[in-house]
Amino acid sequence: MKRVNTGIPGMDEVLHGGIPERNVVLLSGGPGTGKSIFCQQFLYKGVVDYNEPGILVALEEHPVQIRENMKQFGWDIKKFEDEGKFAIIDAFTYGIGSSAKKEKYVVNDPNDERELIDILKIAINDIGAKRIGLDSVTTLYINKPMMARKTVFLLKRVIAGLGCTAIFTSQISVGERGFGGPGVEHAVDGIIKLDLDEINGELNRSLIVWKMRGTSHSLKRHPFDITNKGIVVYPDKVLKIK
Amino acid sequence: MKRVNTGIPGMDEVLHGGIPERNVVLLSGGPGTGKSIFCQQFLYKGVVDYNEPGILVALEEHPVQIRENMKQFGWDIKKFEDEGKFAIIDAFTYGIGSSAKKEKYVVNDPNDERELIDILKIAINDIGAKRIGLDSVTTLYINKPMMARKTVFLLKRVIAGLGCTAIFTSQISVGERGFGGPGVEHAVDGIIKLDLDEINGELNRSLIVWKMRGTSHSLKRHPFDITNKGIVVYPDKVLKIK
Amino acid sequence: MKRVNTGIPGMDEVLHGGIPERNVVLLSGGPGTGKSIFCQQFLYKGVVDYNEPGILVALEEHPVQIRENMKQFGWDIKKFEDEGKFAIIDAFTYGIGSSAKKEKYVVNDPNDERELIDILKIAINDIGAKRIGLDSVTTLYINKPMMARKTVFLLKRVIAGLGCTAIFTSQISVGERGFGGPGVEHAVDGIIKLDLDEINGELNRSLIVWKMRGTSHSLKRHPFDITNKGIVVYPDKVLKIK
Amino acid sequence: MKRVNTGIPGMDEVLHGGIPERNVVLLSGGPGTGKSIFCQQFLYKGVVDYNEPGILVALEEHPVQIRENMKQFGWDIKKFEDEGKFAIIDAFTYGIGSSAKKEKYVVNDPNDERELIDILKIAINDIGAKRIGLDSVTTLYINKPMMARKTVFLLKRVIAGLGCTAIFTSQISVGERGFGGPGVEHAVDGIIKLDLDEINGELNRSLIVWKMRGTSHSLKRHPFDITNKGIVVYPDKVLKIK
Amino acid sequence: MKRVNTGIPGMDEVLHGGIPERNVVLLSGGPGTGKSIFCQQFLYKGVVDYNEPGILVALEEHPVQIRENMKQFGWDIKKFEDEGKFAIIDAFTYGIGSSAKKEKYVVNDPNDERELIDILKIAINDIGAKRIGLDSVTTLYINKPMMARKTVFLLKRVIAGLGCTAIFTSQISVGERGFGGPGVEHAVDGIIKLDLDEINGELNRSLIVWKMRGTSHSLKRHPFDITNKGIVVYPDKVLKIK
Amino acid sequence: MKRVNTGIPGMDEVLHGGIPERNVVLLSGGPGTGKSIFCQQFLYKGVVDYNEPGILVALEEHPVQIRENMKQFGWDIKKFEDEGKFAIIDAFTYGIGSSAKKEKYVVNDPNDERELIDILKIAINDIGAKRIGLDSVTTLYINKPMMARKTVFLLKRVIAGLGCTAIFTSQISVGERGFGGPGVEHAVDGIIKLDLDEINGELNRSLIVWKMRGTSHSLKRHPFDITNKGIVVYPDKVLKIK
Repeated sequence: MKRVNTGIPGMDEVLHGGIPERNVVLLSGGPGTGKSIFCQQFLYKGVVDYNEPGILVALEEHPVQIRENMKQFGWDIKKFEDEGKFAIIDAFTYGIGSSAKKEKYVVNDPNDERELIDILKIAINDIGAKRIGLDSVTTLYINKPMMARKTVFLLKRVIAGLGCTAIFTSQISVGERGFGGPGVEHAVDGIIKLDLDEINGELNRSLIVWKMRGTSHSLKRHPFDITNKGIVVYPDKVLKIK
Repeated sequence: MKRVNTGIPGMDEVLHGGIPERNVVLLSGGPGTGKSIFCQQFLYKGVVDYNEPGILVALEEHPVQIRENMKQFGWDIKKFEDEGKFAIIDAFTYGIGSSAKKEKYVVNDPNDERELIDILKIAINDIGAKRIGLDSVTTLYINKPMMARKTVFLLKRVIAGLGCTAIFTSQISVGERGFGGPGVEHAVDGIIKLDLDEINGELNRSLIVWKMRGTSHSLKRHPFDITNKGIVVYPDKVLKIK
Repeated sequence: MKRVNTGIPGMDEVLHGGIPERNVVLLSGGPGTGKSIFCQQFLYKGVVDYNEPGILVALEEHPVQIRENMKQFGWDIKKFEDEGKFAIIDAFTYGIGSSAKKEKYVVNDPNDERELIDILKIAINDIGAKRIGLDSVTTLYINKPMMARKTVFLLKRVIAGLGCTAIFTSQISVGERGFGGPGVEHAVDGIIKLDLDEINGELNRSLIVWKMRGTSHSLKRHPFDITNKGIVVYPDKVLKIK
Repeated sequence: MKRVNTGIPGMDEVLHGGIPERNVVLLSGGPGTGKSIFCQQFLYKGVVDYNEPGILVALEEHPVQIRENMKQFGWDIKKFEDEGKFAIIDAFTYGIGSSAKKEKYVVNDPNDERELIDILKIAINDIGAKRIGLDSVTTLYINKPMMARKTVFLLKRVIAGLGCTAIFTSQISVGERGFGGPGVEHAVDGIIKLDLDEINGELNRSLIVWKMRGTSHSLKRHPFDITNKGIVVYPDKVLKIK
Repeated sequence: MKRVNTGIPGMDEVLHGGIPERNVVLLSGGPGTGKSIFCQQFLYKGVVDYNEPGILVALEEHPVQIRENMKQFGWDIKKFEDEGKFAIIDAFTYGIGSSAKKEKYVVNDPNDERELIDILKIAINDIGAKRIGLDSVTTLYINKPMMARKTVFLLKRVIAGLGCTAIFTSQISVGERGFGGPGVEHAVDGIIKLDLDEINGELNRSLIVWKMRGTSHSLKRHPFDITNKGIVVYPDKVLKIK
Repeated sequence: MKRVNTGIPGMDEVLHGGIPERNVVLLSGGPGTGKSIFCQQFLYKGVVDYNEPGILVALEEHPVQIRENMKQFGWDIKKFEDEGKFAIIDAFTYGIGSSAKKEKYVVNDPNDERELIDILKIAINDIGAKRIGLDSVTTLYINKPMMARKTVFLLKRVIAGLGCTAIFTSQISVGERGFGGPGVEHAVDGIIKLDLDEINGELNRSLIVWKMRGTSHSLKRHPFDITNKGIVVYPDKVLKIK
């Protein structure tokens, strides 16, 4: 089975070699846990280190802001957009505003799953994408939780069908034990949980791989840091919380 | 009373000889606990080791993907499908897509219990099935919880009536104490719970048989592993959690 | 006050002599706790050991299956049915199916309390019943909880009015502290709770009598076993949980 | 301020002299805690020991059954009913049934508060009642919780206005921390909580006076027993739970 | 900033000098915690010790009963009512009943906030009130929680606008952590919480000032007693619970 | 990246240099935790110490009252309003009342987001504002929680688009673990939590920065005080709670 390297130091060791190709992985965490950074690093490193084109489906932030945020970690994605190796699908602005006019891929109504999927298919074909980041999947069903499972299945079918591997970020509440609702948790191929826990008056970052179809993986909770070069995971350390 | 061997190393010891024939067993667990693997192993080993034809009712995944997943454990089910010893009932694709066209048993509307049951009866007769795996029963009533009990009774009547023994996977949330709702828990003949618990920064797998009509069974929580040959249960070990 | 012996070894000692006549006792427990076995043993031993005819109102299982289940404990009830000392009221099949056609007492619509009560009255008169087992009372109001209290009062009036003593099984969720809802708990004459608790990786069976009108009783939690001859309670042992 | 003696050994010490006259006291407890016995003892002893006529408003049980139950503790209330010193208001049978025909005070529709209050006023005048027991007040608003506060205020006005002192039993769930809902708890003049707690595998009875307008009272949790002569409270003992 | 002395021994020390003028203070507590007594003492002592006229808005009890209750602590308020230094606004009787006819300030429909506020304004002007007690504010929105915040703001504007300082009692459930709902808690100028906690089988009274705009205050939990002369707070003692 | 100094002693150290420019920061806390003071201090010190004009959007209190409150900490804001360096947008009075007539910026219907945003834009342009305080953002969606995320995004776009940095106070309940709802928590650029915890009978103030886009920050819980000169944070101290 082919593996997709995450591009996050230490993470592939945790996954015993990377994410199995075509898997859709739920990256679940509360506010401030580093979901977006993990997702962006996965895409940027894919292009730079593995020459695998990637697409970021932006549901939470303006594409302009995303490019800015990524630059802070030294990830200049504009160049790769111009080279046709990276694409942002703007599902945030609804095509409103002057800077939105410059975006190539725009979803005018993110509530319309068919439009989102059509544009995703086009973008995948255009750049020969191998990696998809969707930030966040929660936005797609925030006001229609009954549809969550169906939406995830629809996306999974397209993404895996076209040979891509994906990370879907899932927004949960602080202290929530689940990963984003039973419908979604059971539908995805893998679950990585990012946590931020207060221990003795200090916040600690850690992640744990809860499931990953097609591979064994570390069953331990690993601490990680957010540095100015992105996320670094410590596969040799274990964090024991409560 | 006749027993049905699970085909899972260590599991029959836990069950004091296997699952009593005609029992419908709820296999309950959160995401990543190994429900689908347990269910597939039960069916595959049934054919290979005990010459008992089996049917997998696929509600969560594409039949093509299921065959792929099973192959990773060395379980090549295609051959037995061709020999008429194994069947997948496709209740996932709705008959949409080219590969779905090749499936023999297709439920076009999984919300229509009567259609599902009719096709199940046909398939049981066609291959002389003795084992049924239904993955997952939760899907059948996810948006109509009031119908859960009735649905389970309906299936139970057909399956036991035709002399089959069944495993129904039940999707629950992480940390949930129950097994899938009171209506279902009391209706089934047996309950096996698969758990994934974080203990001191490490995930631990274990299972416990909560009830099994027609037999005594271990009342202990047993650790298990998911190896590259499937699930292995340790009947001589006990996991003490919390 | 006259007592009704339970026929369960050790249980009468726990009840300081048996259940006071005409009491309606709620037998509450989660899945797999042994409610049905307790109820069936109460009825079978009533006929065999005390010559008290009994009626089982079957709401959860097919009468044919119930006779099978009871046989596994060596309780052959068919003979007593033929002798007019035992009766099953079939409130499960709705009169559908060939084997249901052979049942003598059939409730066509269990949602119609009046029909259920009318048939119960007839059966009580037919065999001169002294004991009633109703398995489960939960089924009667599962989709109409507001009616629970009224339903229990209605049944209680008929049963006590005709001189019978009854056990109503109540299905609760795992870990639930109550006994089946405030309306019911306060309406019945007695409450016996059956528990299945995981202690250090092992399931433990125990029961506690929470209330019993008309008698003092043990206030202790007693362990019990389900053997191949039915339930055995240990009145001299106490289980301390949590 | 005049005090009303409870007639329960030890209870008046706990209340520093009895219940202040005209108080409406909520007697709150789960199933099997002894609420009805406490209420009946308060009324019976009132007649026998203090020559204070009393009325029992029966909402949970048939008047015939209540007379039976009371006899078990040696409280023969029939005689006092005949002497015009005790009355049962039957708000249970709806006037249906032959024995109900013999009852003097019958509320045909307990959902009609006005009818209940009118009959209560008549009965108070008829026998010159000084004590009222209402078992249970919960029944009056079980299916209309928004009306609870208003109902209690209505009753309180009549009862206190006519110079009576009352005990209202309140049915709560096992383990519930409150006393029957905020609307009611704040409306009554006093709250006595009866508890049944499992400690180390044994049920323990205790009560605590949570509030009592017009008097100081013990702030301790006192154990009590239900003997064959009724309730006995131990004012010199304290039960420490959890 | 001018301070208003509470008239409760020890309380002004806890508040570092009294309640800042024009503050609306939420006095929050479960049943039996002493909210009404605190409120009445604040008003009575205001008239007697500080010559500050006060108004009690009575939503929970009959004005006649309130005068009785206050007398038990030696607080004879009738005299001050006659002198025009104290007023009760009867928002309890709806003007029904003969004794209600004698009340000077009657709110016929407490659900009509405008009527309540109009009468409050008149009463404030009539007696030149400086202190307001409203018992309880919960009653005003018990069946319309969405209106709570708006109601409190409306009252606050009138009361502060006319130069008064107020205590609003808030009824909460036993063991509730909040003070009466987020809308209210954030809208008031101060929060004092009265607690009644069972510690080792004994009830303990304590209070804690959670916020008080315009002043520093003790951040400690202070025990208090309800004596036959009213509430006494112990500013030098600290109660550690849980 | 440019930083905005908070003007709160110790806070910039906690933030490793201040709030990154254009960030919208959620300042979340229960009643009495000091949210409004933090927000006002941020604005006042901005004008005085850094010559950065600021705007306070007042949704919870009358502008007149806000000026009063600020004066108590020695922050006389009127002068800066006159100089065109500070503005209050009155979204509290609805323009009702004589003093409201004197306000320059009035939102007549705070439920109309468009009106609020239009007036905010005008005020920002008028005074060249660099800092925005919005107290509280909760008010904007208190009765329409589904709109929370959309409202925050709308405000964020305007505020960041015009080059301002903002603090939005968020009202949560006592003991609540979250920060104001998942929709909001994930939408903002930063989260600072203010806490008030009872430890051994004494209230303790502390804050923790949960996330802050564009900067590293202390991951520790720091105690703080509310002095008569405003908030002082202790960056070298850590509070360990629970």
